[in-house]
Amino acid sequence: MGVRIAVPREIFPGERRVALDPGMAARFAQLGAEVLFQRGAGAGAHFPDAAYQEWVRLVEQPPLAEAEVLLKVQPPTPEEAGQLREGAVLVGFLQPHRHLEMVRLLRDRKVTSFAMELVPRISRAQSMDALSSQASISGYKAALMAAELSSVFFPMLTTAAGTVRPAKVVVIGAGVAGLQAIATARRLGAQVEAYDIRPAAKEQVESLGARLIDTGVKAEGSGGYARELTAEELGIQTEVLARHIALADAVISTAAIPGRAAPRIVSAAMVEAMKPGAVIVDLAAESGGNCELTRPGETLVHQDVIIHGPLNVPSLIPVHATEMYARNLFNFLSPMISDGRLELNWEDEVIARSVLTHAGEVRHEPTLKLLETES
Amino acid sequence: MGVRIAVPREIFPGERRVALDPGMAARFAQLGAEVLFQRGAGAGAHFPDAAYQEWVRLVEQPPLAEAEVLLKVQPPTPEEAGQLREGAVLVGFLQPHRHLEMVRLLRDRKVTSFAMELVPRISRAQSMDALSSQASISGYKAALMAAELSSVFFPMLTTAAGTVRPAKVVVIGAGVAGLQAIATARRLGAQVEAYDIRPAAKEQVESLGARLIDTGVKAEGSGGYARELTAEELGIQTEVLARHIALADAVISTAAIPGRAAPRIVSAAMVEAMKPGAVIVDLAAESGGNCELTRPGETLVHQDVIIHGPLNVPSLIPVHATEMYARNLFNFLSPMISDGRLELNWEDEVIARSVLTHAGEVRHEPTLKLLETES
Repeated sequence: MGVRIAVPREIFPGERRVALDPGMAARFAQLGAEVLFQRGAGAGAHFPDAAYQEWVRLVEQPPLAEAEVLLKVQPPTPEEAGQLREGAVLVGFLQPHRHLEMVRLLRDRKVTSFAMELVPRISRAQSMDALSSQASISGYKAALMAAELSSVFFPMLTTAAGTVRPAKVVVIGAGVAGLQAIATARRLGAQVEAYDIRPAAKEQVESLGARLIDTGVKAEGSGGYARELTAEELGIQTEVLARHIALADAVISTAAIPGRAAPRIVSAAMVEAMKPGAVIVDLAAESGGNCELTRPGETLVHQDVIIHGPLNVPSLIPVHATEMYARNLFNFLSPMISDGRLELNWEDEVIARSVLTHAGEVRHEPTLKLLETES
Repeated sequence: MGVRIAVPREIFPGERRVALDPGMAARFAQLGAEVLFQRGAGAGAHFPDAAYQEWVRLVEQPPLAEAEVLLKVQPPTPEEAGQLREGAVLVGFLQPHRHLEMVRLLRDRKVTSFAMELVPRISRAQSMDALSSQASISGYKAALMAAELSSVFFPMLTTAAGTVRPAKVVVIGAGVAGLQAIATARRLGAQVEAYDIRPAAKEQVESLGARLIDTGVKAEGSGGYARELTAEELGIQTEVLARHIALADAVISTAAIPGRAAPRIVSAAMVEAMKPGAVIVDLAAESGGNCELTRPGETLVHQDVIIHGPLNVPSLIPVHATEMYARNLFNFLSPMISDGRLELNWEDEVIARSVLTHAGEVRHEPTLKLLETES
């Protein structure tokens, strides 16, 4: 038999995705892999067992101790990680900075773990970029949430009883999620302004029919993300942004720095200057929120402004989030499978840069530093 | 002083609209009317008292017994109706077929009541057509609800990890709400099919980039609404529709016959043939639902299909629903005000056809029949 891949049901509360969809199950089978798929694991994403059964072995409980590869969406639980054997390969969103105990466990058990969030943003790895695929879903969904929570119409509406003007939407952060939020709000007919500290954002924002708010602050960072701002830069940013936010019907904030707390961009004072009934959808809630008042996982009303801090947004569109994530995983893993066997080529930049633990070592520098700081 | 108009806070549970927005308050003031506006009545629609105070007299409790005109959104409560004096004018959505007790009370107190749902659908009265203005909001919102509840992306999405195909949406009923639902689902990038038994719908549906499902059944009724179908026609309709619904990611149903229970169009069997994770938004829930399984006011899951039966949908976009409704009311009432005084011209077709009760009589034939049947 070929490489044995285990895919368990995700047990993180509210997680509806799964690491394998029926389409990629077929692709792994074609590569000669033996996939052990937990019964019902696709149910949250509306994929019934019957859609998988031609390609996988359906099992009540995947025997993780026998798996060569474990495919996950969320980080493994200590129980899952504790069953993996030496040399086993784990692939998933591992969020190492939040799960140091898991990192130690994976290191000590000599598991080779790859964190999908570490896949380098190089052209060749675009098809493996799960952060981007899931962020595009989050951005779309954030715009829908803003429209759903809004007390106003997003599109212009011309009726016999007068004209409704289009809503004004401000999108903060024009990364993958932000651009998709802009595109979706524009589709819905809103007037969209976007803010990003990376000058490169301007062209992309404008290509979507939105306008870039210019604060004069530029802060291009590495890997396509922004760097942190100085105090003076923050002051300028705040002043200009506050004026635009005060006029907005909805604000969608998406500014995140990987592995770090989200930057605080929208202050309580800025919220209090907003229109009655205005909405903030804070996609950065997962890492603390871009708005000072956001409570992750909650929807609250502050002085007649609705502040929504959703968590795990991609899981809310589980069919396509699963399909795209599973394809990212397949594109990442399949080059390592030849003649049905797993072979890791450490010369490969993608493999070398995505690894979290291997052969009893933590290979990701920032995580290693965090572990040293902690102990 | 001019005509005295009272606008109370709406007390129907969940009602966020109010019969007067600040813009129309100014217009009534310019006509010389004296508006008594209950403090906080605009709060649900995010209009603070301060936005009204230049044009109205803010009162704790409008003295209905002294009002010449009472403006409402929902039908008056028995308590409200019981305070009105002889000859007072009431304007609002009155839903007479559901509130026969109220109709008797208004008749016996010799109140002149106008039901906004009776405003004739003639060109001159378009700007007073509150059914249409509110239905357009419902249709927009229904499409947003379908997208929000859906497990799939509505637009096509082309990414490095493959292409997501656009969602398939079926809209049943291409009236004002249906057309707006079609337009909104199309804006979001979905492929839309529409079904309507009125042949006139075809051109409108196609102008929005959707395709009309042709069952061969035609049933143009009066007043722009459809007539009821025969048993044979229903059989044909069911068979053709079932095939399209089985392939849909979302169904938005909007088929309503004024003053009657909604036609049952989507059977349990049709739901059971739908895709896992598919969504039905049944805008006809208010009058019982187009889907056999709809429970008005609830969201339920039947064999992995989500069935949403929202009530009072316009109230969910209270700012614009209020602005448009208030404008409809103003356009209806203002021709009756001259030199600040109220004068009803019964020669006017709009007035004559919108009246429900006047001078101790029920003037609306269908309601009169219902009352006679009941007693």
